[in-house]
Amino acid sequence: MDYYGKHFSRLMEQLSKLPGVGYKSARRLAFHLIAMSEHQVEEFADAILTAKKNTKYCQNCFTLTDQEICPICSSSKREAGIIMVVEETKDLVAYEKTGRFSGQYHVLGGVISPMLGIGPSDIRTKELLTRLASAEVQEVILATGSTVEGEATAMYLSKLLKPIGIKVTRIANGVPVGGDLEYVDEMTLARALDGRTEI
Amino acid sequence: MDYYGKHFSRLMEQLSKLPGVGYKSARRLAFHLIAMSEHQVEEFADAILTAKKNTKYCQNCFTLTDQEICPICSSSKREAGIIMVVEETKDLVAYEKTGRFSGQYHVLGGVISPMLGIGPSDIRTKELLTRLASAEVQEVILATGSTVEGEATAMYLSKLLKPIGIKVTRIANGVPVGGDLEYVDEMTLARALDGRTEI
Repeated sequence: MDYYGKHFSRLMEQLSKLPGVGYKSARRLAFHLIAMSEHQVEEFADAILTAKKNTKYCQNCFTLTDQEICPICSSSKREAGIIMVVEETKDLVAYEKTGRFSGQYHVLGGVISPMLGIGPSDIRTKELLTRLASAEVQEVILATGSTVEGEATAMYLSKLLKPIGIKVTRIANGVPVGGDLEYVDEMTLARALDGRTEI
Repeated sequence: MDYYGKHFSRLMEQLSKLPGVGYKSARRLAFHLIAMSEHQVEEFADAILTAKKNTKYCQNCFTLTDQEICPICSSSKREAGIIMVVEETKDLVAYEKTGRFSGQYHVLGGVISPMLGIGPSDIRTKELLTRLASAEVQEVILATGSTVEGEATAMYLSKLLKPIGIKVTRIANGVPVGGDLEYVDEMTLARALDGRTEI
Protein backbone atom coordinates (compact mmCIF):
# COMPACT_ATOMS: atom_id res chain seq x y z
CA MET A 1 0.00 0.00 0.00
CA ASP A 2 1.06 3.54 -0.70
CA TYR A 3 1.31 4.98 2.81
CA TYR A 4 2.96 8.27 1.92
CA GLY A 5 0.90 9.34 -1.07
CA LYS A 6 1.99 8.76 -4.66
CA HIS A 7 4.10 11.91 -5.08
CA PHE A 8 6.18 11.24 -1.99
CA SER A 9 6.61 7.60 -2.98
CA ARG A 10 7.72 8.61 -6.44
CA LEU A 11 10.32 10.93 -4.88
CA MET A 12 11.59 8.12 -2.64
CA GLU A 13 11.81 5.83 -5.66
CA GLN A 14 13.81 8.38 -7.65
CA LEU A 15 16.15 9.06 -4.73
CA SER A 16 16.78 5.37 -4.14
CA LYS A 17 18.22 5.13 -7.66
CA LEU A 18 21.19 7.22 -6.54
CA PRO A 19 24.40 5.34 -5.72
CA GLY A 20 24.69 4.37 -2.05
CA VAL A 21 21.10 5.37 -1.30
CA GLY A 22 18.89 2.56 -0.02
CA TYR A 23 15.23 2.60 1.03
CA LYS A 24 15.79 4.18 4.43
CA SER A 25 18.23 6.82 3.19
CA ALA A 26 15.85 7.69 0.37
CA ARG A 27 13.04 8.15 2.90
CA ARG A 28 15.23 10.37 5.07
CA LEU A 29 16.28 12.47 2.07
CA ALA A 30 12.68 12.73 0.89
CA PHE A 31 11.53 13.92 4.34
CA HIS A 32 14.35 16.45 4.31
CA LEU A 33 13.42 17.74 0.86
CA ILE A 34 9.74 18.05 1.79
CA ALA A 35 10.69 19.96 4.94
CA MET A 36 12.73 22.49 2.94
CA SER A 37 11.10 25.76 1.90
CA GLU A 38 9.53 25.97 -1.54
CA HIS A 39 12.29 28.35 -2.64
CA GLN A 40 15.05 26.01 -1.47
CA VAL A 41 13.47 23.06 -3.25
CA GLU A 42 13.23 25.05 -6.47
CA GLU A 43 16.90 26.06 -6.11
CA PHE A 44 17.81 22.42 -5.59
CA ALA A 45 15.92 21.14 -8.61
CA ASP A 46 17.23 23.98 -10.74
CA ALA A 47 20.83 23.18 -9.75
CA ILE A 48 20.34 19.64 -11.03
CA LEU A 49 18.75 20.68 -14.32
CA THR A 50 21.20 23.50 -14.99
CA ALA A 51 24.23 21.35 -14.24
CA LYS A 52 22.97 18.59 -16.53
CA LYS A 53 22.29 21.08 -19.31
CA ASN A 54 25.50 23.09 -19.09
CA THR A 55 28.20 20.70 -18.00
CA LYS A 56 30.16 19.28 -20.90
CA TYR A 57 33.52 17.75 -21.65
CA CYS A 58 36.43 19.95 -22.69
CA GLN A 59 36.99 19.37 -26.42
CA ASN A 60 40.72 19.09 -25.84
CA CYS A 61 41.32 17.22 -22.56
CA PHE A 62 37.81 15.89 -21.77
CA THR A 63 37.57 17.16 -18.22
CA LEU A 64 34.17 18.33 -16.97
CA THR A 65 33.68 22.03 -17.62
CA ASP A 66 31.04 24.52 -18.70
CA GLN A 67 33.05 25.85 -21.64
CA GLU A 68 34.02 24.33 -24.97
CA ILE A 69 37.69 24.41 -23.95
CA CYS A 70 38.41 24.22 -20.21
CA PRO A 71 40.32 26.99 -18.36
CA ILE A 72 43.43 24.80 -18.07
CA CYS A 73 43.64 23.99 -21.80
CA SER A 74 42.92 27.60 -22.79
CA SER A 75 45.44 29.07 -20.34
CA SER A 76 48.62 30.42 -21.92
CA LYS A 77 50.48 29.78 -18.66
CA ARG A 78 50.26 26.00 -18.97
CA GLU A 79 52.91 24.03 -20.84
CA ALA A 80 51.25 22.32 -23.77
CA GLY A 81 54.29 20.04 -24.17
CA ILE A 82 53.57 17.93 -21.07
CA ILE A 83 50.36 15.96 -20.77
CA MET A 84 49.30 14.15 -17.63
CA VAL A 85 46.90 11.30 -18.33
CA VAL A 86 44.35 10.73 -15.51
CA GLU A 87 41.31 8.51 -15.10
CA GLU A 88 38.68 11.06 -14.09
CA THR A 89 38.15 14.79 -13.56
CA LYS A 90 38.46 14.26 -9.81
CA ASP A 91 42.03 13.01 -10.29
CA LEU A 92 42.83 16.14 -12.29
CA VAL A 93 41.43 18.17 -9.39
CA ALA A 94 43.60 16.23 -6.92
CA TYR A 95 46.75 17.11 -8.90
CA GLU A 96 45.65 20.70 -9.47
CA LYS A 97 45.34 21.11 -5.70
CA THR A 98 49.02 20.26 -5.28
CA GLY A 99 49.85 23.28 -7.44
CA ARG A 100 52.95 21.40 -8.64
CA PHE A 101 51.96 20.61 -12.19
CA SER A 102 51.95 23.25 -14.89
CA GLY A 103 51.30 21.09 -17.94
CA GLN A 104 47.99 20.00 -19.44
CA TYR A 105 45.80 16.97 -18.75
CA HIS A 106 44.03 14.25 -20.63
CA VAL A 107 41.05 12.66 -18.89
CA LEU A 108 40.49 9.07 -20.01
CA GLY A 109 37.05 8.74 -18.49
CA GLY A 110 37.84 5.34 -17.00
CA VAL A 111 40.40 2.55 -17.05
CA ILE A 112 40.81 -0.61 -19.08
CA SER A 113 39.07 -3.42 -17.21
CA PRO A 114 38.54 -6.74 -18.99
CA MET A 115 36.49 -7.90 -15.98
CA LEU A 116 33.93 -5.16 -16.63
CA GLY A 117 34.28 -5.42 -20.39
CA ILE A 118 35.97 -2.02 -20.73
CA GLY A 119 38.55 -2.09 -23.51
CA PRO A 120 40.97 0.57 -24.87
CA SER A 121 38.31 1.83 -27.26
CA ASP A 122 35.90 2.54 -24.38
CA ILE A 123 38.21 5.12 -22.81
CA ARG A 124 39.65 8.17 -24.59
CA THR A 125 42.78 6.53 -26.07
CA LYS A 126 41.99 7.51 -29.66
CA GLU A 127 41.46 11.12 -28.60
CA LEU A 128 44.86 11.08 -26.88
CA LEU A 129 46.56 9.81 -30.03
CA THR A 130 44.83 12.46 -32.16
CA ARG A 131 45.98 15.10 -29.69
CA LEU A 132 49.57 13.84 -29.72
CA ALA A 133 49.59 13.81 -33.52
CA SER A 134 48.47 17.41 -33.83
CA ALA A 135 50.49 19.01 -31.02
CA GLU A 136 54.16 19.23 -30.10
CA VAL A 137 54.28 17.00 -26.99
CA GLN A 138 57.55 16.09 -25.26
CA GLU A 139 56.29 14.03 -22.35
CA VAL A 140 53.22 12.05 -21.35
CA ILE A 141 52.90 11.36 -17.62
CA LEU A 142 50.72 8.36 -16.88
CA ALA A 143 48.86 9.15 -13.65
CA THR A 144 46.20 6.47 -13.60
CA GLY A 145 45.64 4.88 -10.19
CA SER A 146 47.85 2.21 -8.63
CA THR A 147 45.07 -0.35 -8.88
CA VAL A 148 45.32 -3.41 -11.10
CA GLU A 149 43.24 -1.65 -13.76
CA GLY A 150 45.17 1.60 -13.42
CA GLU A 151 48.49 -0.21 -13.82
CA ALA A 152 47.22 -2.19 -16.80
CA THR A 153 45.96 0.99 -18.47
CA ALA A 154 49.33 2.70 -17.87
CA MET A 155 51.14 -0.33 -19.30
CA TYR A 156 48.87 -0.39 -22.37
CA LEU A 157 49.33 3.33 -23.02
CA SER A 158 53.11 3.21 -22.60
CA LYS A 159 53.32 0.42 -25.18
CA LEU A 160 51.13 2.46 -27.49
CA LEU A 161 53.01 5.75 -27.08
CA LYS A 162 56.66 4.76 -26.88
CA PRO A 163 56.89 3.73 -30.56
CA ILE A 164 55.75 7.25 -31.53
CA GLY A 165 58.94 8.53 -29.89
CA ILE A 166 57.34 10.40 -27.00
CA LYS A 167 58.85 10.24 -23.53
CA VAL A 168 56.41 8.30 -21.32
CA THR A 169 56.68 8.45 -17.53
CA ARG A 170 54.70 6.99 -14.66
CA ILE A 171 54.04 8.68 -11.28
CA ALA A 172 56.06 7.08 -8.48
CA ASN A 173 54.89 4.46 -6.01
CA GLY A 174 56.19 4.76 -2.47
CA VAL A 175 55.49 5.43 1.16
CA PRO A 176 52.83 8.15 1.62
CA VAL A 177 54.19 11.31 3.25
CA GLY A 178 53.52 11.15 6.98
CA GLY A 179 53.04 7.39 6.70
CA ASP A 180 54.41 5.09 9.37
CA LEU A 181 56.35 2.24 7.71
CA GLU A 182 54.64 -0.23 10.01
CA TYR A 183 51.27 0.44 8.39
CA VAL A 184 52.41 0.47 4.77
CA ASP A 185 51.79 -2.71 2.79
CA GLU A 186 54.65 -4.86 1.52
CA MET A 187 54.09 -4.14 -2.14
CA THR A 188 54.34 -0.40 -1.53
CA LEU A 189 57.48 -0.85 0.58
CA ALA A 190 59.08 -2.92 -2.19
CA ARG A 191 58.21 -0.26 -4.78
CA ALA A 192 59.57 2.46 -2.49
CA LEU A 193 62.85 0.54 -2.30
CA ASP A 194 63.01 0.06 -6.07
CA GLY A 195 62.33 3.73 -6.63
CA ARG A 196 64.86 5.02 -4.10
CA THR A 197 66.68 8.22 -5.04
CA GLU A 198 70.07 9.55 -3.96
CA ILE A 199 69.99 12.42 -1.47
CA MET B 1 39.61 27.51 -7.93
CA ASP B 2 36.50 26.17 -9.58
CA TYR B 3 37.81 23.00 -11.21
CA TYR B 4 34.49 21.54 -12.26
CA GLY B 5 32.79 24.57 -13.76
CA LYS B 6 30.28 26.67 -11.85
CA HIS B 7 27.15 24.66 -12.63
CA PHE B 8 28.65 21.40 -11.47
CA SER B 9 30.03 23.09 -8.34
CA ARG B 10 26.63 24.56 -7.57
CA LEU B 11 25.09 21.11 -7.89
CA MET B 12 27.70 19.67 -5.49
CA GLU B 13 27.00 22.47 -3.04
CA GLN B 14 23.25 21.84 -3.15
CA LEU B 15 23.71 18.09 -2.73
CA SER B 16 26.06 18.53 0.23
CA LYS B 17 23.23 20.27 2.12
CA LEU B 18 21.36 16.97 2.29
CA PRO B 19 21.59 15.07 5.59
CA GLY B 20 24.48 12.61 5.69
CA VAL B 21 25.99 13.86 2.44
CA GLY B 22 29.53 15.23 2.73
CA TYR B 23 31.83 16.66 0.06
CA LYS B 24 32.86 13.34 -1.46
CA SER B 25 29.36 11.87 -1.47
CA ALA B 26 28.04 15.06 -3.05
CA ARG B 27 30.67 14.77 -5.78
CA ARG B 28 29.78 11.14 -6.40
CA LEU B 29 26.06 11.95 -6.57
CA ALA B 30 26.74 14.90 -8.88
CA PHE B 31 28.79 12.71 -11.24
CA HIS B 32 25.98 10.18 -11.18
CA LEU B 33 23.33 12.79 -12.00
CA ILE B 34 25.41 14.24 -14.84
CA ALA B 35 25.90 10.76 -16.27
CA MET B 36 22.13 10.11 -16.31
CA SER B 37 20.19 10.75 -19.52
CA GLU B 38 18.49 14.12 -19.96
CA HIS B 39 15.11 12.45 -19.64
CA GLN B 40 16.05 10.71 -16.40
CA VAL B 41 17.37 13.95 -14.91
CA GLU B 42 14.15 15.75 -15.80
CA GLU B 43 12.15 12.93 -14.21
CA PHE B 44 14.28 13.23 -11.09
CA ALA B 45 13.92 16.99 -10.75
CA ASP B 46 10.21 16.77 -11.48
CA ALA B 47 9.73 14.15 -8.75
CA ILE B 48 11.25 16.57 -6.24
CA LEU B 49 9.17 19.55 -7.31
CA THR B 50 5.92 17.60 -7.61
CA ALA B 51 6.37 15.95 -4.23
CA LYS B 52 7.09 19.27 -2.57
CA LYS B 53 4.07 20.86 -4.21
CA ASN B 54 1.55 18.10 -3.62
CA THR B 55 2.48 16.46 -0.35
CA LYS B 56 0.54 17.84 2.59
CA TYR B 57 -0.54 16.81 6.04
CA CYS B 58 -3.87 15.04 6.59
CA GLN B 59 -6.23 17.56 8.18
CA ASN B 60 -7.33 14.97 10.71
CA CYS B 61 -4.27 12.90 11.74
CA PHE B 62 -1.40 14.95 10.22
CA THR B 63 0.27 12.12 8.38
CA LEU B 64 1.92 12.91 5.03
CA THR B 65 -0.53 12.42 2.18
CA ASP B 66 -1.56 13.96 -1.11
CA GLN B 67 -5.19 14.35 -0.12
CA GLU B 68 -6.95 16.64 2.33
CA ILE B 69 -7.93 13.66 4.46
CA CYS B 70 -5.66 10.61 4.27
CA PRO B 71 -6.93 7.18 3.13
CA ILE B 72 -6.80 5.82 6.69
CA CYS B 73 -8.88 8.62 8.21
CA SER B 74 -11.39 8.54 5.36
CA SER B 75 -11.76 4.75 5.41
CA SER B 76 -15.02 3.48 6.88
CA LYS B 77 -13.27 0.25 7.85
CA ARG B 78 -11.11 1.88 10.50
CA GLU B 79 -12.35 2.26 14.07
CA ALA B 80 -12.52 5.96 14.86
CA GLY B 81 -12.76 5.15 18.58
CA ILE B 82 -9.11 4.11 18.96
CA ILE B 83 -6.31 6.53 18.20
CA MET B 84 -2.66 5.55 18.14
CA VAL B 85 -0.35 8.50 18.76
CA VAL B 86 2.98 8.24 16.88
CA GLU B 87 5.94 10.58 16.38
CA GLU B 88 6.23 10.60 12.60
CA THR B 89 4.57 9.26 9.46
CA LYS B 90 7.24 6.56 9.22
CA ASP B 91 6.11 5.17 12.58
CA LEU B 92 2.55 5.03 11.28
CA VAL B 93 3.87 3.13 8.26
CA ALA B 94 5.74 0.71 10.54
CA TYR B 95 2.51 -0.11 12.40
CA GLU B 96 0.44 -0.27 9.23
CA LYS B 97 2.83 -2.90 7.90
CA THR B 98 2.02 -5.17 10.85
CA GLY B 99 -1.60 -5.16 9.68
CA ARG B 100 -2.63 -5.56 13.33
CA PHE B 101 -4.09 -2.15 14.04
CA SER B 102 -7.48 -1.14 12.72
CA GLY B 103 -7.91 2.20 14.49
CA GLN B 104 -6.80 5.65 13.44
CA TYR B 105 -3.57 7.52 14.04
CA HIS B 106 -2.40 10.89 15.26
CA VAL B 107 1.03 12.02 14.05
CA LEU B 108 2.68 14.39 16.53
CA GLY B 109 5.42 15.53 14.16
CA GLY B 110 8.11 15.15 16.80
CA VAL B 111 8.64 14.58 20.50
CA ILE B 112 9.00 16.86 23.49
CA SER B 113 12.70 17.56 23.95
CA PRO B 114 13.74 20.31 26.39
CA MET B 115 17.35 19.80 25.19
CA LEU B 116 16.38 20.88 21.68
CA GLY B 117 13.87 23.44 22.94
CA ILE B 118 10.87 21.48 21.68
CA GLY B 119 7.92 21.90 24.03
CA PRO B 120 4.36 20.48 24.02
CA SER B 121 3.18 23.38 21.88
CA ASP B 122 5.70 22.56 19.14
CA ILE B 123 4.19 19.15 18.47
CA ARG B 124 0.54 18.47 17.62
CA THR B 125 -0.83 18.18 21.17
CA LYS B 126 -3.47 20.86 20.74
CA GLU B 127 -4.69 19.21 17.55
CA LEU B 128 -5.00 15.91 19.44
CA LEU B 129 -7.10 17.55 22.17
CA THR B 130 -9.34 19.23 19.57
CA ARG B 131 -9.80 15.87 17.91
CA LEU B 132 -10.64 14.11 21.17
CA ALA B 133 -13.16 16.83 22.04
CA SER B 134 -15.04 16.51 18.77
CA ALA B 135 -15.04 12.71 18.32
CA GLU B 136 -16.15 9.71 20.37
CA VAL B 137 -12.80 8.19 21.39
CA GLN B 138 -12.52 5.27 23.83
CA GLU B 139 -8.78 4.68 23.84
CA VAL B 140 -5.60 6.52 23.04
CA ILE B 141 -2.54 4.30 22.51
CA LEU B 142 0.73 6.13 23.07
CA ALA B 143 3.22 4.70 20.57
CA THR B 144 6.04 7.22 20.75
CA GLY B 145 9.53 5.66 20.78
CA SER B 146 11.20 4.12 23.80
CA THR B 147 13.80 6.89 23.87
CA VAL B 148 14.05 9.38 26.74
CA GLU B 149 12.11 11.94 24.68
CA GLY B 150 9.55 9.39 23.52
CA GLU B 151 8.92 8.27 27.10
CA ALA B 152 8.67 11.85 28.36
CA THR B 153 6.19 12.70 25.62
CA ALA B 154 4.09 9.64 26.45
CA MET B 155 4.17 10.60 30.13
CA TYR B 156 3.14 14.17 29.37
CA LEU B 157 0.29 13.07 27.12
CA SER B 158 -1.02 10.50 29.61
CA LYS B 159 -1.17 13.17 32.32
CA LEU B 160 -2.98 15.44 29.91
CA LEU B 161 -5.51 12.88 28.70
CA LYS B 162 -6.39 10.84 31.77
CA PRO B 163 -8.32 13.67 33.47
CA ILE B 164 -10.58 13.86 30.40
CA GLY B 165 -11.65 10.31 31.21
CA ILE B 166 -10.17 8.60 28.17
CA LYS B 167 -8.40 5.24 28.51
CA VAL B 168 -4.71 5.82 27.83
CA THR B 169 -2.38 2.92 27.06
CA ARG B 170 1.30 2.58 26.18
CA ILE B 171 2.82 0.00 23.81
CA ALA B 172 4.81 -2.68 25.64
CA ASN B 173 8.54 -2.82 26.21
CA GLY B 174 10.19 -6.22 26.03
CA VAL B 175 12.50 -8.60 24.27
CA PRO B 176 12.29 -8.22 20.46
CA VAL B 177 10.89 -11.30 18.72
CA GLY B 178 13.78 -13.46 17.53
CA GLY B 179 16.07 -11.67 19.95
CA ASP B 180 18.68 -13.60 21.92
CA LEU B 181 18.46 -12.65 25.61
CA GLU B 182 22.23 -12.35 25.73
CA TYR B 183 22.17 -9.36 23.40
CA VAL B 184 19.24 -7.54 24.96
CA ASP B 185 20.12 -4.65 27.28
CA GLU B 186 19.35 -4.80 31.02
CA MET B 187 16.70 -2.13 30.97
CA THR B 188 14.73 -3.98 28.31
CA LEU B 189 15.07 -7.25 30.21
CA ALA B 190 13.79 -5.57 33.38
CA ARG B 191 10.81 -4.12 31.50
CA ALA B 192 10.12 -7.51 29.91
CA LEU B 193 10.00 -9.03 33.39
CA ASP B 194 7.71 -6.29 34.70
CA GLY B 195 5.40 -6.72 31.76
CA ARG B 196 5.23 -10.55 31.90
CA THR B 197 1.89 -12.13 31.04
CA GLU B 198 0.38 -15.45 32.04
CA ILE B 199 0.34 -18.15 29.35
